[in-house]
This record gives sequence, C-alpha cells and structure tokens, in this order.
Amino acid sequence: MTDETYKPGLEGIIATETALSYLDVDHEQIVIRGYDLIELANTVDYIKVAHLLMEGHLPTSSEYDAFVRTLNERQTVPDQIFSIMKSLGPQQHLMDSLRTALSALATFDSSLGRLDAQSTAEQSLTLLARMPVIVANSYHIKNHEAIVQPRADLGYAANFLAMITGSVPTPDEAQAFDQLLTVYSEHEMPNSTFTAIVIASTLSDMYGALVGAVASLKGTLHGGANEAVMHMLLEMKTPDQVAPQLLAKLARKERIMGFGHRVYMKKPDPRAMLMKESLKRLVAIKGHQDLYDMCVIGEEVMQREKGLYPNLDYYAAPVYYLLGVPIELYTPIFFAARTAGLVAHVREQYEHNRLFRPRVRYTGPRGLHP
Amino acid sequence: MTDETYKPGLEGIIATETALSYLDVDHEQIVIRGYDLIELANTVDYIKVAHLLMEGHLPTSSEYDAFVRTLNERQTVPDQIFSIMKSLGPQQHLMDSLRTALSALATFDSSLGRLDAQSTAEQSLTLLARMPVIVANSYHIKNHEAIVQPRADLGYAANFLAMITGSVPTPDEAQAFDQLLTVYSEHEMPNSTFTAIVIASTLSDMYGALVGAVASLKGTLHGGANEAVMHMLLEMKTPDQVAPQLLAKLARKERIMGFGHRVYMKKPDPRAMLMKESLKRLVAIKGHQDLYDMCVIGEEVMQREKGLYPNLDYYAAPVYYLLGVPIELYTPIFFAARTAGLVAHVREQYEHNRLFRPRVRYTGPRGLHP
Repeated sequence: MTDETYKPGLEGIIATETALSYLDVDHEQIVIRGYDLIELANTVDYIKVAHLLMEGHLPTSSEYDAFVRTLNERQTVPDQIFSIMKSLGPQQHLMDSLRTALSALATFDSSLGRLDAQSTAEQSLTLLARMPVIVANSYHIKNHEAIVQPRADLGYAANFLAMITGSVPTPDEAQAFDQLLTVYSEHEMPNSTFTAIVIASTLSDMYGALVGAVASLKGTLHGGANEAVMHMLLEMKTPDQVAPQLLAKLARKERIMGFGHRVYMKKPDPRAMLMKESLKRLVAIKGHQDLYDMCVIGEEVMQREKGLYPNLDYYAAPVYYLLGVPIELYTPIFFAARTAGLVAHVREQYEHNRLFRPRVRYTGPRGLHP
Repeated sequence: MTDETYKPGLEGIIATETALSYLDVDHEQIVIRGYDLIELANTVDYIKVAHLLMEGHLPTSSEYDAFVRTLNERQTVPDQIFSIMKSLGPQQHLMDSLRTALSALATFDSSLGRLDAQSTAEQSLTLLARMPVIVANSYHIKNHEAIVQPRADLGYAANFLAMITGSVPTPDEAQAFDQLLTVYSEHEMPNSTFTAIVIASTLSDMYGALVGAVASLKGTLHGGANEAVMHMLLEMKTPDQVAPQLLAKLARKERIMGFGHRVYMKKPDPRAMLMKESLKRLVAIKGHQDLYDMCVIGEEVMQREKGLYPNLDYYAAPVYYLLGVPIELYTPIFFAARTAGLVAHVREQYEHNRLFRPRVRYTGPRGLHP
C-alpha cells in the first residue's frame, strides 16, 4: 500500500506506456507518433492522421487510396441499428443514442470475440467507416427525419458534414471540418481514452471499450464542454455582453466551460489557437464577425481575471456553429473524430496488457457486526 | 511527472477514497461499510446488504419492508427494451445484450441528467429493481423463449432464480442463490467499479457509468472468469481427470481461470471458502458429489503446483450449476449482484468528485515532420 502517493483523479500519475501520443507541456507540443499535431493539422488531412494513428505511419499515395476505398466499402450500417436508435426513449441525448448504437453494433460483428492484431485492425476500420453514418443519423432519427446514406464520391470529412447538414460543403467548409476532426483525433490519456483502455485490460472486446468511452465523453467535464460553450455564447448574444456576463458568472463562482485544462494548466492549448485561426477564416467567408469578437473578448476576460487560457472546446464550438452543425452533435462528432485514437489505444493495450486494478484509501468504519 | 511511480495496471496505487469497502488482506477480511462480508453473508440476506451499501446502514424491519416494496413497484421494464434486445445481431453474448439494454434504459429515465443525491438514489433503486428482469430475459430472448415477468410474492433472490429457471426454487436453493448475490455485491475497486467511477468523474450519468462497468465485467480476466471455470470443469468430466488435465494445461502454460487474485495474492479469497461450504450443502441435498470432488482436487493441485488459492469464481461456478443457472448467465448475474455496490460507488464519486485524468510514459519517436 502506498497511501502517500494518493493523487485524487490520478493527477500526474503515469497510468500506462504508449507510443501513440504525448502532451509535451514544456514545449507546448502535442506529439502524435512523433509528429506535431498542429503541423499535421496544417499540412495533411484527417484520413492521413487516422492512418498514422491506426497503422503506425503516414500513408503513401497508394496506401491512402486503399485506406479510403476500404472505409467506403465498410460504411453500411445494419438497418437494425437504426431501428434500435428509433425505439429509444424521450430522454435521449445524442450520446445516449450513439452509446446504444455502438453497443448493439458489436453483436453484428462476426469477429467480436477475437482480440488478435488482425481482427482488431479490421474492427477498427469498420468502426471508423461507420461512425459518421451513425453520428449523423442519430440527429436525423431524433428529429424524425429520413435516414441519410453516405456518398462515396465525397471525402471523409465532406461526406460527414454533408450527411449532417444535408448539403455538400464548399471546399473551405470541408477543409475547416476536416481540420476540426484532426485536432480532435487524439490527445494522450483523457478520461475517455483511459476508460477505453481500463475496459480493454479485462480482455473485453473493442466495441465494449468504445461504448465506455462514449459514456465518459458525454460528461460535462469532458466532451460535453463544447456544447456548453456554444450555449453560453448564444446566451451572451452580443460582444458588449460578454465581459459583464462573464464577470457576473465568476462572481457567482459558476464554472466557465472552455477554459483551463488539467494538463496544460496555465499554458495555452495549441489546438485552441489553431481553431481560433480557423474561426477567423470562416468569419471572413461567411460573416458573423460578432461571434469572433465575442470569443476574443471572452478569452481576454478569462486570462485577465483567472489566468486561464481557452481550451480546444472554446474555439471549436463557434467553428462547428458556422459550419451549420447542430449543437447537440458537437460531442458525438468529437467522439467520431477520436475513434482513430481510441481504437489505436485499445489495440496497444491488448498488445502489452496488464489488468487495471488499483486500490483505495478506506475512510469508513471498522468492527461492526450485524 | 512522476515516472518513478509507474505501476502497470495501477497495481497497488490508491485511486480513490471510499467508505464503502476495503480488502483487508492482512486480516483476510472483506470490509463492507464496517461489517465483515462473510459474516453478513452468513447472517443477513442480499436485500439487507444492498440497503447497507446504498443507504449507508442495515435496514430496520420497517425500512426493510419499505425497501422491498419500492423495489417491487419499480420492476417493470419498458417493452421497448425487450424489443431492442430482440433485434440484436447473432454474435450476442448475454453481456452485450445487458450492456445495450442498460444503455437504452437510460433514455426512459426522466431524471437521467440529474446527478443530485435524491435523483441518483431514485435511479439506483430503479436499476436494482429492474436488473433481475433484464438479466433473466436476456437469456430467454436469446433462446426465443417468452418474456418472463417478476413475481412480487417471492423474495428478491427467489424471484430472480425463478425468472431464470422457470420454477420456484426450494428455500435451500433460494438461500444459496441469495448468498451468491451477497458475496458478489461489493468488492472494493475491481476493474468494473473503477471503470464506473472513472466515467462518473466526467459528471456523465449513472446509467453510462454502469454501461461501462458491464463492458468491463464481460472481459475474461474479470467477470467472464466464472463461465470459463464451469466450462473447464465440464470438460474434465470426472474427478480422476482433474489432476492430469490441470497438469497438462500448466505444462502448456495455459491460464487456469478461477485461481489467484491481484489483491489476495497468495492468500485465500474468503468468499471462495464460503461458496465451497455452500456447494457442499447443495451437493448433500441435490447429489453431484463428483462435482464437489473435482473442485477440491483442482484446488489441491493448484495450491501444490502453483501456490495459488481459488478465488470466488472457482466455487461460485458449480453453485450456479447446481442451481440450474445456464452458464452464459453467470457473468450477467455477477453484474446484477454488483449493482448495489456500483451505484453506491458512483454516488460517492459524485459527492467528492475529481475528474480522472492520468498521464502516460511516452515510448514513441519524436521530431518527425510530414
């Protein structure tokens, strides 16, 4: 027993070894298999980063084509999954729908019980291929709209966005959405990834591990934060309302979503700065200068008052908004983008597995008898 | 960064504080809110232990009656849940069905998004009440049998077993099943409980936390072990086959399920010894002396050859078997019994929350450019 090392929330505790990613806070760099995530997001597309995460290297031109072809071939989601999503109850957050759909999808994968490298590679491709179809349709089903099928003639990001909005995005829009997927693709050991590898360590299957990650990402302290940011921005309405409303919230000791991060602490999240640039470009094309101004004012207020920097969710939310993505899809899309990183972590866990089974500090009574 | 404290699988690392339970290995005692689990299992029933875990104290006579009444009132599972379970694919393990059913059940709970003490207490009661109905029917649905409804005139354990086997158990059978539920009710911080509190720490809802725990418990290194034990015993067929077959497995370096435990290490699991006594009593009533003899021989061989003691799963499996429980229900019943402990841990997490977010030791390359 090592009581003296107890850190609530395992803060600063090394939970595992990984070759996938690392937050190098000292150098303000997010390392993805040796590459800088921000450099990747500025130079290659999401599918290349997904290939890097899942296959271990950036794809050659022919590997890229084969990867895209494979994903296109596997997009078809069994009709039973849509039927199940349609029969869910009225309390449905789209993350509940996604969680149930993934849990059900497991029972249609004939390789479900196999955890070898080849089987889990196949499962990973199937999951990445189907995620946009499930996520986009979770929204359409909840809103009693027709099921939308993928279009193989569009790229991964363009097809994903088209399935959500109902219209083919412009190249600028598709590129902004692709970059969003890339910055959300992988981020070391957040709660959802940790949940996935903890589950996988019992040698449970990959679908189950991802189902647990959906449950984790739903939480307002994790993936749910991006939706909370957009609701806050919409409530504030105009730039002149941002400072007084934020100050009032701080005076009431309310939690302001979109600022600070366990690991980055008092340093900027490099992904947030990239999304800020993306927002600026979108505003130049599509208008809504007010939204950009509001974000910048909010950033300044929080830095001055609390010494906190915006995290990814803060600037991702208005980008989603300008791309026409319904707010309730922000967290499911975060999950879809993170699928590439999650499946890679689960496969890594299987490769050098050790069951997660920590201890506790007991604070209850002793010596009672019935 | 504290690289030097890295323990694969968080072995020996304190992950949280809890007043619920503690494995006191030095004194070979499983402490449940101050009581000895084995003493509880020998003197009170599962419902009393569930009340202890969920409400903080053993119930008075009138509290007991009210608790039972509340559970009886909440047993009805929405028909849509059974429909969803019926439309799952062919690869279905009953844990996949249970995981999907619980995930879907969330969307029928109007208090889903509320995490306050009162709401989560209500959610806990609903989950405990419905678990036997969902678990028993996961088997009937997979086997194309009619949906079975609960009987309010039977006790919790007797009703649960009756829904599984189709006939009202004798008092001896009901008592053995009740004791099984009790010994599975809570056990400090195994992987599934850890999964649940990790998910809850994002302030995700209680259903999601339990869905993750089902995914965890499905793994063969965790809940799946009890099913593996029974398959092994059935393969060995007769007492004289146990020693040679175990020795052959050991020579092939196969993993023998049902022996050893991360925390108990080289000491006996007190729950296994209790189940051994239960098995002996059942054999005296129902026959199958061979099965008892096989278990004892296996225990002796493993202790002599590997210095390993049986864990709970080893002696629980033949008890389930003699009670007429289908093997594929062993793990789902483990989960149903553990519900009382899981909901208590999730509520405790909400009460003193700190987001779980550990770090990693990065083993990949650096300095690459696209």
